[in-house]
Amino acid sequence: MFSTFGQNIRITVFGESHGTGIGVVMDGFPAGEAVSMEELNRFMARRAPGQRGTTPRKEKDTPEVLSGLQNDTTTGSALAMIIRNKDHRSDDYITDIPRPSHADLNAHLKFGGHMDMRGGGPFSGRITAPLCLAGGVAKQILARRGIAVGAHLAAIGAIEDARWDPVLVRREELEQIGRQGFPAIDPAKADAMLDYLDRVKDEEDSVGGRIGCMATGVPAGLGEPNYLSVESHLSHLLFSVPGVRGVQFGTGFAAAKMRGSEHNDPIRLEDGRFYTQTNHAGGIVGGITNGMPLVVEVAMKPAASIGQKQRSVSLSQNRETDLRIEGRHDPSIAVRAVPVIEACMAITLLDFMEGKNGITGHQK
Amino acid sequence: MFSTFGQNIRITVFGESHGTGIGVVMDGFPAGEAVSMEELNRFMARRAPGQRGTTPRKEKDTPEVLSGLQNDTTTGSALAMIIRNKDHRSDDYITDIPRPSHADLNAHLKFGGHMDMRGGGPFSGRITAPLCLAGGVAKQILARRGIAVGAHLAAIGAIEDARWDPVLVRREELEQIGRQGFPAIDPAKADAMLDYLDRVKDEEDSVGGRIGCMATGVPAGLGEPNYLSVESHLSHLLFSVPGVRGVQFGTGFAAAKMRGSEHNDPIRLEDGRFYTQTNHAGGIVGGITNGMPLVVEVAMKPAASIGQKQRSVSLSQNRETDLRIEGRHDPSIAVRAVPVIEACMAITLLDFMEGKNGITGHQK
Amino acid sequence: MFSTFGQNIRITVFGESHGTGIGVVMDGFPAGEAVSMEELNRFMARRAPGQRGTTPRKEKDTPEVLSGLQNDTTTGSALAMIIRNKDHRSDDYITDIPRPSHADLNAHLKFGGHMDMRGGGPFSGRITAPLCLAGGVAKQILARRGIAVGAHLAAIGAIEDARWDPVLVRREELEQIGRQGFPAIDPAKADAMLDYLDRVKDEEDSVGGRIGCMATGVPAGLGEPNYLSVESHLSHLLFSVPGVRGVQFGTGFAAAKMRGSEHNDPIRLEDGRFYTQTNHAGGIVGGITNGMPLVVEVAMKPAASIGQKQRSVSLSQNRETDLRIEGRHDPSIAVRAVPVIEACMAITLLDFMEGKNGITGHQK
Amino acid sequence: MFSTFGQNIRITVFGESHGTGIGVVMDGFPAGEAVSMEELNRFMARRAPGQRGTTPRKEKDTPEVLSGLQNDTTTGSALAMIIRNKDHRSDDYITDIPRPSHADLNAHLKFGGHMDMRGGGPFSGRITAPLCLAGGVAKQILARRGIAVGAHLAAIGAIEDARWDPVLVRREELEQIGRQGFPAIDPAKADAMLDYLDRVKDEEDSVGGRIGCMATGVPAGLGEPNYLSVESHLSHLLFSVPGVRGVQFGTGFAAAKMRGSEHNDPIRLEDGRFYTQTNHAGGIVGGITNGMPLVVEVAMKPAASIGQKQRSVSLSQNRETDLRIEGRHDPSIAVRAVPVIEACMAITLLDFMEGKNGITGHQK
Repeated sequence: MFSTFGQNIRITVFGESHGTGIGVVMDGFPAGEAVSMEELNRFMARRAPGQRGTTPRKEKDTPEVLSGLQNDTTTGSALAMIIRNKDHRSDDYITDIPRPSHADLNAHLKFGGHMDMRGGGPFSGRITAPLCLAGGVAKQILARRGIAVGAHLAAIGAIEDARWDPVLVRREELEQIGRQGFPAIDPAKADAMLDYLDRVKDEEDSVGGRIGCMATGVPAGLGEPNYLSVESHLSHLLFSVPGVRGVQFGTGFAAAKMRGSEHNDPIRLEDGRFYTQTNHAGGIVGGITNGMPLVVEVAMKPAASIGQKQRSVSLSQNRETDLRIEGRHDPSIAVRAVPVIEACMAITLLDFMEGKNGITGHQK
Repeated sequence: MFSTFGQNIRITVFGESHGTGIGVVMDGFPAGEAVSMEELNRFMARRAPGQRGTTPRKEKDTPEVLSGLQNDTTTGSALAMIIRNKDHRSDDYITDIPRPSHADLNAHLKFGGHMDMRGGGPFSGRITAPLCLAGGVAKQILARRGIAVGAHLAAIGAIEDARWDPVLVRREELEQIGRQGFPAIDPAKADAMLDYLDRVKDEEDSVGGRIGCMATGVPAGLGEPNYLSVESHLSHLLFSVPGVRGVQFGTGFAAAKMRGSEHNDPIRLEDGRFYTQTNHAGGIVGGITNGMPLVVEVAMKPAASIGQKQRSVSLSQNRETDLRIEGRHDPSIAVRAVPVIEACMAITLLDFMEGKNGITGHQK
Repeated sequence: MFSTFGQNIRITVFGESHGTGIGVVMDGFPAGEAVSMEELNRFMARRAPGQRGTTPRKEKDTPEVLSGLQNDTTTGSALAMIIRNKDHRSDDYITDIPRPSHADLNAHLKFGGHMDMRGGGPFSGRITAPLCLAGGVAKQILARRGIAVGAHLAAIGAIEDARWDPVLVRREELEQIGRQGFPAIDPAKADAMLDYLDRVKDEEDSVGGRIGCMATGVPAGLGEPNYLSVESHLSHLLFSVPGVRGVQFGTGFAAAKMRGSEHNDPIRLEDGRFYTQTNHAGGIVGGITNGMPLVVEVAMKPAASIGQKQRSVSLSQNRETDLRIEGRHDPSIAVRAVPVIEACMAITLLDFMEGKNGITGHQK
Repeated sequence: MFSTFGQNIRITVFGESHGTGIGVVMDGFPAGEAVSMEELNRFMARRAPGQRGTTPRKEKDTPEVLSGLQNDTTTGSALAMIIRNKDHRSDDYITDIPRPSHADLNAHLKFGGHMDMRGGGPFSGRITAPLCLAGGVAKQILARRGIAVGAHLAAIGAIEDARWDPVLVRREELEQIGRQGFPAIDPAKADAMLDYLDRVKDEEDSVGGRIGCMATGVPAGLGEPNYLSVESHLSHLLFSVPGVRGVQFGTGFAAAKMRGSEHNDPIRLEDGRFYTQTNHAGGIVGGITNGMPLVVEVAMKPAASIGQKQRSVSLSQNRETDLRIEGRHDPSIAVRAVPVIEACMAITLLDFMEGKNGITGHQK
């Protein structure tokens, strides 16, 4: 495991799905920042199970603060929060037969059979809860600096949501998604997605999805080429989220089919401020933010845990066998991952903001 | 700038396109490893310009070794190589008018106007030459450990190359691509791509592309979840390559449309060795290699430098203006980036290999 | 704050003296290692207050494990332990008047007045409790690899303890110190120190001290010059311990007065094994261990908190004033810091051991 | 090897004593900073051999800049400088017989016999030349921010130099030392030291020494407890310098004998500015600078290379043998290490300064 991320701020997560507790240490976060635990809990509720389109499992992820906050204000020392695990049903998962495309077999090989893989252990989506605690705090700090972060379910299977305009997107649009139930922009698409998720669930199957994320109010100049470019740093964190299989910035893979004459974003000038007419770059050029909205999209694979019969092996008997997984599973991990992607964006942006405020040069 | 990458080994690159020289320091590389400079120069030749489908600019990137090698064998101390810049035509690029979708404007803002942006400065594709020096050395070391890395031009615009089988791909196939001229698997597709690139060039335009990369012989157990997963670490480096706009592992974005019942890779057992029947996972599950071929694909945007007239601004006159870029440009940066992607893969894999040999647990 | 330390393993500590809790995340520790909580609690008891020569404050630092252990064995995921704070008497310390030579004023300036400085906040010696948790676990793992770590109170004020022989020291001697009450080698010196500490306490004063630490069974080859030399890495951690003002290896400052002909350690050969006849080097040459016992000594300043009247300032009234600190204080922080120094040594050694097993070269 | 140091700025050094060249990459240094190569060369001359009291070996360490400077101004990209090695007499050192207390044997064991140990290889004091290049640049930048760094030869053997007043030391005093020949404050002591060094040399011996270093103009608030305290970070770099065996801050080891009532620095207030009446703390409390002069001292061991006969082993013959080292050696490495210690101080301070300007909290 390598459980610490960040350059100017650092988060360290820990915990297994069915252990005693999980948590996060937020280190180097600025002092004197108000943290509303109420707002944080609302953010956490967005990734909680039990909503339509997700598993009925109950996780009440109310964090306990151990250090770093006094009078709801960051003190400057490491901010540690823990969440106790409660709702175990440890026999849900069979550990002798590794689940295809889940980490069971790899964890077994890598950690010599010692890993606590009940409920997926540290590979469970549950480990994204502490990531969201850090992301939720980062979002509150960024909001006071004029930066808004929002994500939505860009697609479930073949059903595509509407999308925000990468040039004109407003802060309010990004914030709205966090206030509603299901994280799709278009209500009609939300209904279609929910119906489809119910069907997938009935078929004891799962389905992949895509999550689009944007940020507005990001100052120009964040990011350090070569090896701390915005894309490098953000993708590093995004690919730590279980199930993420692809990350693209701006026009992304579609840019691979485009001509430069289409893809280049003309530079414009208005009231002494530079902007680009289009935003194929997704707000990042040369690894550095250019002041336009940040645009990133991730692909989530279908959840590995499905009810249908699958082929696997018995580790104890050293032979191939069938596997049928019982229990409560999300038909698509993409739904609950929406706030997780926001968390990744917020943590990465705060990390850059806590550097030299985005300017290496004569900022003094 | 943030110019050092790696955990167990570390590479540090430096240089600007039209400065005195560029180079790389390879630190923590294992001692006692033979390095063939001849083989390294052959690898470097693959990213050199002057081939059909690329810019006619001449860069003879013959490195000079300053330290770390004795009798063509690594000593264990930092291995430093430099390449002198020669073929400047510094007036090719106009620096008062930032090129759309190039780093000019961002570099100007971030570094207070001090950056040496002639030829793209440190944002030029030229900085990938030292990356390839490190990658070329890493490839030689990995080859002796049974690991082969190969990449090909998966697509130029809408023209798609054939692809390697993600389960059955053989080492020889990966190595073949490095011995031939144009890096497409299918000769007919290579011809079509070359014709298309000529047309794009005639139209003073550029076009994007995709690069597919695989590795065979990778042991199971590499990668450290949470924040040093194989995907996190490799994407971090890949997104430092100028022009990369998307990275996907295994089935990647296509997985977002799939059902779990399709996407899950059944686990099989043969001669006491686990393998998966399909390889949608691209050889990485839970952030850890599983012994199957590694599969990654990157999207490259079209080069920003095109001859066609574009809209931009004059920094000195603070007004909008037209820009027409003269000079010699690659119609697609994807062509020469193929060995660069191999270099990223090789460096990342060697970094993991130089950790605890991929096994955290009972390795004692 | 910067709360994470380590290269191959990483520890992250958090907590303030009078906050809700303190703790540590041990990341990258090897899987499959038995951890005896009983032994760990015995180690923790060595730094607990309430013994003769220390403050009568009661801290029962029984840790709770949140993750990373199953059946008293490390799983391979991050091992998190927390300790709840209990025995606050928050009005013991006056925060408007910064205590001379304590972190009060600096913390005020650096963190904009937001730091929770009750009881010294995160600058309190209390933060060494989580460090000892990590060190205690590391010691158990190292012991199974034949490495013993021990420290003793080399001096309190002018009273000097006996010392271990830097060439012939035996594992049993190092282990013995942890089993006895007061950490001096020579019982007569222990009595003298205790009497002196009582007198210092009666005089409402404090006194400095020195702690000597050795390790046996350390393999040759640990340490990475240039910037991860054994001295660099170990001193980095040692100087994070509140009150440490000097660190020396081997003969240390005394070497500055010596001739090379005296100081050089003749290399000898016995049964095919190299050793040195003397050990002025303290087991480290060129930043690398040479297989001889490791020898390090630290200087601890006198505790800043004393009962005697001192000159300081009132922050609220912006004027100079007198300060008289009430409460329970250690007459010498060096006494309880003895196991803390052991913890630093153990963590650093385990970090190196978890690298390439100490050998960069032909280990394949 | 681990050749990169720094958090907000990073230096990477490379090179062996008798290889082709040595050098340094300075990464993350601020853009727009003037760098006088003339001043840098003057700084380099201070550690060059050939002065009285040092070896007569000629090293003309004139650096060549490869990148990162344009018009003598930092561009913001990595600043790389190299120095070519010239004056080899490779047969000076016998490599079959490891020199006692030199890195020969350890390097042999660690790097499997592959290390290029001619002239000490990467363990040679020569590797401090690139460190001085970085330190010299850092000093120029710091000077413009009002920070002066100076070091002197506090002692050679038993001969002690005068010392600067830790409260009242002026910038001019620190700068003076760099303008004079031999780096002692007191001319009489300088003479005594030089005479003594001649005698040591005549006796084919070497002798240790101490170097005192101070910095003025350092703002309060630098340093990040817990694990990036000023002491941790600075000692980390200092202990990477070959021959450093001890580091102490402020009163250091002498503090171990003091009472708190003597050692505590009373806090005073003058014209709205806090200061301390004494400076036993050496300008660092709680790991954070307090605005008082920084005070550090290092102990250097006697050079390992002496002409007198010593006992060692023949690696090829696997038996004990005598060794007599020919060649030109410094009677005390402490003399030429004086600017090296300044370099360490300057690099560390610039690293902190390039963070959040020393203030974590409400700096916005």
